[in-house]
Order: sequence, then structure tokens, then C-alpha cells
Amino acid sequence: MKVIIDLCVVPMGVGVSVSQYVAECQKVLQEAGLKHQLHAYGTNIEGDWDDVFAAVKECHTRVHAMGAPRITTSIKVGTRTDRDQSMQDKIDSVKGNDA
Amino acid sequence: MKVIIDLCVVPMGVGVSVSQYVAECQKVLQEAGLKHQLHAYGTNIEGDWDDVFAAVKECHTRVHAMGAPRITTSIKVGTRTDRDQSMQDKIDSVKGNDA
Amino acid sequence: MKVIIDLCVVPMGVGVSVSQYVAECQKVLQEAGLKHQLHAYGTNIEGDWDDVFAAVKECHTRVHAMGAPRITTSIKVGTRTDRDQSMQDKIDSVKGNDA
Amino acid sequence: MKVIIDLCVVPMGVGVSVSQYVAECQKVLQEAGLKHQLHAYGTNIEGDWDDVFAAVKECHTRVHAMGAPRITTSIKVGTRTDRDQSMQDKIDSVKGNDA
Repeated sequence: MKVIIDLCVVPMGVGVSVSQYVAECQKVLQEAGLKHQLHAYGTNIEGDWDDVFAAVKECHTRVHAMGAPRITTSIKVGTRTDRDQSMQDKIDSVKGNDA
Repeated sequence: MKVIIDLCVVPMGVGVSVSQYVAECQKVLQEAGLKHQLHAYGTNIEGDWDDVFAAVKECHTRVHAMGAPRITTSIKVGTRTDRDQSMQDKIDSVKGNDA
Repeated sequence: MKVIIDLCVVPMGVGVSVSQYVAECQKVLQEAGLKHQLHAYGTNIEGDWDDVFAAVKECHTRVHAMGAPRITTSIKVGTRTDRDQSMQDKIDSVKGNDA
Repeated sequence: MKVIIDLCVVPMGVGVSVSQYVAECQKVLQEAGLKHQLHAYGTNIEGDWDDVFAAVKECHTRVHAMGAPRITTSIKVGTRTDRDQSMQDKIDSVKGNDA
């Protein structure tokens, strides 16, 4: 099953700056070979369900290993059976309605 | 890795009432033997990471099988390494601060 | 416009335990006279759009005033024009499909 | 109070394609003069709390007016008192950790 997710990992108990933990998650996604795009409040990720969620789990594992005692993560998960759609297709279809 | 999640599955393209799909997801959680608690905007689930996310995937599979061509799901995911905490513990610790 | 929301306020930079901040938000909701129900990963709130979002803003104001330098909050927001529905109605309609 | 949010408006009961509704929300944000950036699973928005949430309410009003009987929206809301930070700053601070 193909999935597009939006992932936002929030380490708690590590102070106010969390960018190094987010950067580590970007590394996880790159190592996993998953198409992904960082934005100001999360990261869009596209791929096979199992690959994508294995990467999400690895993000939690790594962020804990970096010293974060607690993590709260928000994920939006989209699947569809009617047609194939990429992250770029979603953006294009909104922009095509902007005329 | 132990996890507490909040799950909200939204079938799209099936009309305005989605309670039968949510009820099917409750069945998935029961069959999986996962501790869970329905609320007005989602379901709290507690268990091992792999068991919990296998159930989330099964929810998508079943809801598509029931005829929903598209699903958008919101998940909050909490893990912690500092101590063990159940869903009930989280509620109790807030209420303990209510005095 | 009537709204049902699910609110999860996460203070950052204040250590690993955040229950006192969540308890303060419960107080805000009580003072605002809004119907609300705490669960293990957030709080369901029901009311008029403006009243509910004024309370959400007040939660941010109070949690910052308690010393949290940064807050990240997740909100799910439901509105409908086809019929009136309470938080309890939503739960009942899922349970009615459980038979 | 300055805020950065991530907004994802999901109209229900209108069929499987929702891009015209998302496009209308983009128009709302433009009319409001709010800095915003569409991504594949939502839109980042930056501005004063009251202006941003007035726009979110207007999105619900317009999407209902277009015929959607039900809407479920996900919002992430970030505020901080320790320093001023823009959407671009957030992206830059993650990328600065990528070295």
C-alpha cells in the first residue's frame, strides 16, 4: 500500500531548540531512500506503507538515543485506492484550481 | 518500544456519515487485543509499537475494503524512555494537578 | 458556528513532565464554561467557534505565563451544517454500529 | 501573539477530490494578506494569532458555502516567547544541522 504522510517529531525534556533532532530524522529518511520534503512544520514523505513507518519508528529510536527522554509526534497519513497520486500531484491539483 | 497513540481515521468519498468505518476500526483494535478507549474525536491506543502500527495499517486496509476510495488519518504518537506510563496514568497525572 | 475540537497543548523547554500545564488548560476551559472531556492524549471541547478558540488562545497565554518559552499544539476541528451533533452523539453513533 | 500554524482542511461528504476547496482556502489566506506556503499535506501560515485564526474560521465558512456539509481540519500551532522565528528560520535551522 502506497502512502503519503506528514511527519512532525517533537522531542520533550531537551530544551527549547529541537532542530538537531529534526535534522537527524531527515538523515533517517535519506538513508531509507524515501522521497521527502521538509517544510516549516513537518516533513512530507512518500513511499510504501511498511518502509515509511519503519522510518518513523527509526526516528523515534534515534531521537531517544540522542538523549530525548520523551517524544510526541504528529502524523497525517493518506492512502487512496482510486488512483495513484504523488506529493507533487497533490500540490499541482490545488494550484490547477487557483486560476 | 511501548507506545501510546491517538488515532483518527477519516474515510473520504463515502458521504457525510463515517461511523460505520470508525466502528470497524474499533473491531480491528479489539481483534488485535490492544487496550483502547474511544473518545469524541479519535481513539487512544496503548501497546507495543509494532502491534499498534500493524493495527493502524489493518484499519486502512479494512476501510478501503468497505468501499472508501480515500482515507486521511491523524495520529499522535507518544514514546518515553524515562518511565513506564499508561493511558490512565496520563489522565491521573493531570487530575492530580487539578487540586 | 458550533464546533467540536480536540486540543493537545505541548509546552517545550520545561522538562519532561507537562501535567501541570495541561491542568492549567483544564482550568481555562472550566472558567470559560465550555463542555470538555479530558482523555489520555488531549481534550475534547464543544461550543461556539469564537468561545472555543478564545479559550485555546488563553491556554497559550497562560502556559507561556507559567514559564514555558515554546508551545506546540495540535488541534482537530469539526464543523457541520447538515445537523447538530454533540461530543456524546459522535461516540454513540460509533457504538451504535458496533452491534 | 505571533503564531506559525500548519493547516489541513478536509471537506467530507463531497466526493473524493477536494482540491477546489483547498484552492479556495488559499484564496482566503491571500485575501487576508497572510504569509503562507502550500505543501503536499497542508499549508504553513505565519502571522498574528487573531488574524491567522480569523482566516481559519473564514476557510470553514467558505468551504461550507461551497456545499461541503461537514469539515474536519487538523491544525498545528506554534508560539514562542524566547525569540522571534519565521517559517523560513525553522527550515534554515534544521538545514544548518544537516552538515
